[in-house]
Amino acid sequence: MATQGFTIWFTGLSGAGKTTLAKRVQKVLLKRGMNVELLDGDVVRTNLSKGLGFSKEDRDTNIRRIGFVASLLARNHAVCIAAAISPYQSIRDEVRGMHSHFVEVYTACSIDKLEERDTKGLYKKARAGEIKGFTGIDDPYEAPVNPEVFIDTETETIDDSTMKIVRHLEQRGLIPGDLSDDVSPEEEARIMDKLKALNFIG
Amino acid sequence: MATQGFTIWFTGLSGAGKTTLAKRVQKVLLKRGMNVELLDGDVVRTNLSKGLGFSKEDRDTNIRRIGFVASLLARNHAVCIAAAISPYQSIRDEVRGMHSHFVEVYTACSIDKLEERDTKGLYKKARAGEIKGFTGIDDPYEAPVNPEVFIDTETETIDDSTMKIVRHLEQRGLIPGDLSDDVSPEEEARIMDKLKALNFIG
Repeated sequence: MATQGFTIWFTGLSGAGKTTLAKRVQKVLLKRGMNVELLDGDVVRTNLSKGLGFSKEDRDTNIRRIGFVASLLARNHAVCIAAAISPYQSIRDEVRGMHSHFVEVYTACSIDKLEERDTKGLYKKARAGEIKGFTGIDDPYEAPVNPEVFIDTETETIDDSTMKIVRHLEQRGLIPGDLSDDVSPEEEARIMDKLKALNFIG
Repeated sequence: MATQGFTIWFTGLSGAGKTTLAKRVQKVLLKRGMNVELLDGDVVRTNLSKGLGFSKEDRDTNIRRIGFVASLLARNHAVCIAAAISPYQSIRDEVRGMHSHFVEVYTACSIDKLEERDTKGLYKKARAGEIKGFTGIDDPYEAPVNPEVFIDTETETIDDSTMKIVRHLEQRGLIPGDLSDDVSPEEEARIMDKLKALNFIG
């Protein structure tokens, strides 16, 4: 269990890798024995956002609601990972304001690249006008001005991005450090010997 | 912080005392150093149920949603107290099924008594047909068949009802026992002396 709770908030365009990355970070934190709840896609649609449509007001209500639930978890010492397009800076700031510890992760990807990938065929439909109000096509996305973690999903590997987030959490003291993720057993043994020699550990 | 989380779910007709009692129980648990979140009335309307109406389907969605959030809190070691009319046994059972530790508290009160009190004037409006689908008047309420705690709000005092719930939590081992609530300082000192004499405490 985390000694203090916090929320990791993934924002970015559809298909930019929010959920993929959120799940990877969740896995790392679970392996470290933390309580982690993931609020994204299906979980949100099934349990939180039924009854809401796609108007600006309904979208804002949806983001505020996810933020509310995240803040409840965080203030009760859990880790909440939320992944939502959350296109508006002002609402993301509102959600941030509900938290003592908040980590905004911006998964950046160019529209060109997203239209090229288009794994779900959503961008094609949006371009054809079959989906209206699609963020990035005919609805705005306000990129975070100063996110805690910036991820360039066009050039970084998922492993690199995951560790970038984990390192940020460690550096902020939100999670304890862990040598085992990126250090070979031999190197770890060498480090431990050195720490013992220096009387840092018994 | 509670070592294990759980949800206390208040069900009962409008005006039967769910919120009053929920707040009292919350106060006792907070005084005992637990993390307690109260999901009721305004909190739910503002943060969770916007966009939902009063159809059976929307009401069920609302209850399931409160249940979902309660279950997230409970499985992350917090205490969640929810107060909602929640008129249908099947949906309450669904919510129970989301939990490892669930305490259903039924605040029972006769319609006659509720119409007599009618602090918010809602029963009068419902009788006059100004409010449609009002639970207990022209919409059903299925009383819990086997609630963990049964409260007769017509005859019990709020203090008695509060302690009935707290005692249930203690007896189930959901919260540690506390002598200070119902024992005079003199009696507590006498008990402590006896425990010392028996070498139970130092």
